[in-house]
Amino acid sequence: MANQSRRASPVVAISGGVGGAKLAFGLYQVLGPDRLTVLANTGDDFEHLGLQICPDLDTLMYTLAGINDAQRGWGRAEETWTFMQALDALGGETWFALGDGDLATHVERTRLLLRGHSLTAVTDRFCRRLGIRARLLPMSDDRVQTRIETKDEVLNFQDYFVRQACRPKVTGFHFHGADAAAPNPQFVASLNDADLAAVVICPSNPFISVDPVLAVPGVRNALLKCPAPVVAVSPIIGGKAVKGPTDKMMVELGLPVSTATIADHYAEVLSGLVVDKHDARSAEVIGVPILCTNTLMETLDDRKQLARDVLSFARRLRHSNHR
Amino acid sequence: MANQSRRASPVVAISGGVGGAKLAFGLYQVLGPDRLTVLANTGDDFEHLGLQICPDLDTLMYTLAGINDAQRGWGRAEETWTFMQALDALGGETWFALGDGDLATHVERTRLLLRGHSLTAVTDRFCRRLGIRARLLPMSDDRVQTRIETKDEVLNFQDYFVRQACRPKVTGFHFHGADAAAPNPQFVASLNDADLAAVVICPSNPFISVDPVLAVPGVRNALLKCPAPVVAVSPIIGGKAVKGPTDKMMVELGLPVSTATIADHYAEVLSGLVVDKHDARSAEVIGVPILCTNTLMETLDDRKQLARDVLSFARRLRHSNHR
Repeated sequence: MANQSRRASPVVAISGGVGGAKLAFGLYQVLGPDRLTVLANTGDDFEHLGLQICPDLDTLMYTLAGINDAQRGWGRAEETWTFMQALDALGGETWFALGDGDLATHVERTRLLLRGHSLTAVTDRFCRRLGIRARLLPMSDDRVQTRIETKDEVLNFQDYFVRQACRPKVTGFHFHGADAAAPNPQFVASLNDADLAAVVICPSNPFISVDPVLAVPGVRNALLKCPAPVVAVSPIIGGKAVKGPTDKMMVELGLPVSTATIADHYAEVLSGLVVDKHDARSAEVIGVPILCTNTLMETLDDRKQLARDVLSFARRLRHSNHR
Repeated sequence: MANQSRRASPVVAISGGVGGAKLAFGLYQVLGPDRLTVLANTGDDFEHLGLQICPDLDTLMYTLAGINDAQRGWGRAEETWTFMQALDALGGETWFALGDGDLATHVERTRLLLRGHSLTAVTDRFCRRLGIRARLLPMSDDRVQTRIETKDEVLNFQDYFVRQACRPKVTGFHFHGADAAAPNPQFVASLNDADLAAVVICPSNPFISVDPVLAVPGVRNALLKCPAPVVAVSPIIGGKAVKGPTDKMMVELGLPVSTATIADHYAEVLSGLVVDKHDARSAEVIGVPILCTNTLMETLDDRKQLARDVLSFARRLRHSNHR
């Protein structure tokens, strides 16, 4: 019992793929088993080759299980690519790379979904098998599809992101199906936990990784009502995105590429913002509490240190009654 | 024109998996491009992990393309098995081994079938991509499922063959759906070709590889009416099956394990039977013309030599008016 009372309070993280997954893994390491809930963006999900692919969910799953490929930045470690080579030989579509091991996730998930299991149930099953002691949840069991608006056309997410390598100039975003989607009930329930230490918005792309989550009816409101502080980690460091098109999108949308834009973006749901030391000066003008620290996660220690910094920042916010 | 007139006459082969595929490959090598039609048993086909698997069709395709694994006896050469390992880790069904490269065939085929392509069209597409200049046809585009009757129950084919490793004692066979299936129209048309040199029943299991083909309405009659001789190669050598449960099934069905049983089995459709030199004596009592030769195909040369022997036997049968 003494042991239990010393256990860390639960934490909820909201995350997209690679960048967010690094902090999610740091939080998991620092908090220990059965303390962390990670809500994953599923706006990138799509059907390909008849298989249900969930890129962010899988990046998080592989990362939390410690079987992700850190070098490549996505997919599984010790992966082989025989399937893709054989598919190419048969004249199949090869623009979306699927590793042989990764394929098992998609084939088995598709099979279970067709049998009537929810995406939440399938994800839980896989996570248990992989020994993950964090709770990984899709943002919704309903289909939400992120679409990229450009001057001339509306693109499906993977068409924009992979096939066109983020080249088209973005004018806006649409989360198809979000209006009718229900938020993950386990996520909503976890926000009502009086013991909750923090909600962490991971350093993911705000437009295409976090906004799909916030577009699901009830999520924004649940965050506003949540007794725990909501802390975002800026994905912008020194006026640039560490990875992906966040900065490019800001430019195209006519927004300053800065941590202030991140703060404005999350606006009323935000209790505090974590920015990199390189952005200390620009952060002075932001209207929310700020923590300046090292947010570039190059090593495992970086991830754990950032997780600790975020959690102690949340603790301070809580005590000073910012939530 | 002179060249064309010297080309070999077309040949049709009926085949199951591994054993039959060896002779089909020999015939392909000897006949050259665009002369051979191979009709594949699809009674073994089944859905697994949501994918449409056609074991005999694929064994033939990989063999004709020269990308089969000769050592293992099934599947593709230079195969990897990362998918199976990952599937096992996720708690998926692993009793049916699927190589990573092999998987591309099943995933792409399933996708194309769901889009409304016929199995014949999908097979043709794959064969063209793999550079196969023989025509590989499924026996039917309709679903026929071989079921194994035992004393206590009726087993699905792969349940009997793979999961239970042919252990149950066989009492009979049922080809579910055969009554309502249409034979492959290209196969039927090829039998009406006046120039046809031979129909070769490859040394496959008569009960579970060839009988499903013969069970499709119209096939038996088309063979009877066919102007070319129908020559079977016995899968029994020296009172034993080279591979698979043919001899075991004969014992269980109360039949002598002999080439005479093969001749009786095909009975009226047969113009001649090719038996191994080891069976020369037992073959004397069989009521059809016999060719005794080496039928054990250990090397590529063995396959080509048997193909040449079968074709010249058919030529002699034709001239002596056995058909």
